[in-house]
Amino acid sequence: MAASNLVGTVQPIDELAHIAKEYGALFHTDAVQAGGKIPIDVKRSPLDMVSLSAHKLHGPKGIGALFVRRGVELSPIVFGGGQERGLRSATENVAAIVGFGVAAEIAREEMEAESTRLKQLREKIIRRLAQTVPQAYVIGHPERRLPGHLSLGFAGQEVLAGRLVQHLDKTGVAVSAGSACNAHHADKPSGVLLAMGFDSERARGLVRITLGRFNTEEEVDRLLEILPALVAELDPSTDWTTSPQLAGPVLAGTLA
Amino acid sequence: MAASNLVGTVQPIDELAHIAKEYGALFHTDAVQAGGKIPIDVKRSPLDMVSLSAHKLHGPKGIGALFVRRGVELSPIVFGGGQERGLRSATENVAAIVGFGVAAEIAREEMEAESTRLKQLREKIIRRLAQTVPQAYVIGHPERRLPGHLSLGFAGQEVLAGRLVQHLDKTGVAVSAGSACNAHHADKPSGVLLAMGFDSERARGLVRITLGRFNTEEEVDRLLEILPALVAELDPSTDWTTSPQLAGPVLAGTLA
Repeated sequence: MAASNLVGTVQPIDELAHIAKEYGALFHTDAVQAGGKIPIDVKRSPLDMVSLSAHKLHGPKGIGALFVRRGVELSPIVFGGGQERGLRSATENVAAIVGFGVAAEIAREEMEAESTRLKQLREKIIRRLAQTVPQAYVIGHPERRLPGHLSLGFAGQEVLAGRLVQHLDKTGVAVSAGSACNAHHADKPSGVLLAMGFDSERARGLVRITLGRFNTEEEVDRLLEILPALVAELDPSTDWTTSPQLAGPVLAGTLA
Repeated sequence: MAASNLVGTVQPIDELAHIAKEYGALFHTDAVQAGGKIPIDVKRSPLDMVSLSAHKLHGPKGIGALFVRRGVELSPIVFGGGQERGLRSATENVAAIVGFGVAAEIAREEMEAESTRLKQLREKIIRRLAQTVPQAYVIGHPERRLPGHLSLGFAGQEVLAGRLVQHLDKTGVAVSAGSACNAHHADKPSGVLLAMGFDSERARGLVRITLGRFNTEEEVDRLLEILPALVAELDPSTDWTTSPQLAGPVLAGTLA
């Protein structure tokens, strides 16, 4: 993955692709989360294949793209009318293709300015929560992460994550506990977090806040107003100011 | 196929499914062309699987459905987030799913009335062309066919088909030579027509006229006005009233 949907960490895919090429291996990256948010340059980087999805960059759902470097041969897994050079037989969804193209154009034009703006909003959330919810800590790499992406753990209060998501939803704030793909395995801890050194209880306690082009500073301020009160309400017995800070797991920094 | 996209013939899938069940075989039908146009009843008929596509019944592109009878076990061919019970991993296109559902509802409500209306329009085309373009003949079963579907051959003038499609397009009338799936093999004769007993020249000479819910009698009248003149213009040397009628191939009736 060029960037993790769950923890937001951006992987060094350029270096990885170079190493793969050095040893004669093909290199594919799932850039679905990264596309339109950080630069991916197939001219500069020896990526053989790159997967993208429109709805992750404000395009329509139901349409994706696979970049395939000339010379790389693929075998189809669906067969039929032979559309798209036989690689993906099915009537082409032209409206979605066009929508994806326009969305990608806009994302590229606005990427630099948006990246700066979203990072500032994210840093604002981190700064403020360090004061109001000191048990919260950042999961994933503190700097090498997607601009609008913030994963939070709640030291000693992992059980809060799922309830926070539900209660925030009622106030009109959509955040996520884990990844949508795992929604039907919500009780199972994330393999990614386990691999990063979390124990299974802490691996269940992630809240993911993602900001995009249509999110405003007002919305961030509203979240910052709601979240501390909600945490206190959901677990008023906890004395948030004195409970001990857990040592951060691999790649997890504390907010304070 | 429950009904052929190319020649419009409706297959006896109920009988076929009964025979399959008798011998313990599973029965799948591609009902993409038939869906929303003729009744398909999975309660009455022992169909194990039925494929449908939304855009063939005025729903959005990029969405289809597979009916699977309880007890039939399928193996996925795409893997990932485990959506749709693991059978088709991918973020669900909710807007398209809803659109498909509404389109299917409307199609079911209007099916009976539309079927009658479209058959009348089709019969009008056949009656009139029998007088104005006597070399035209119907390809496919004369009665057991999709209500709004008409495939025409042009006896001795197969070369006309491709040119007719292009010229009709310029007048705003969209018809098809063969099937869209074969658009990039336009020079190759249809395997379906060859199997029906056409020689390769005649198999290249099909013009497909399909009428749908949004087509009007005025549009049909316009086609009937344009087509004979266009045929004469494209090949004025042909004396259409005296050239011999070809014996119809298997399942092809003449218009006259």
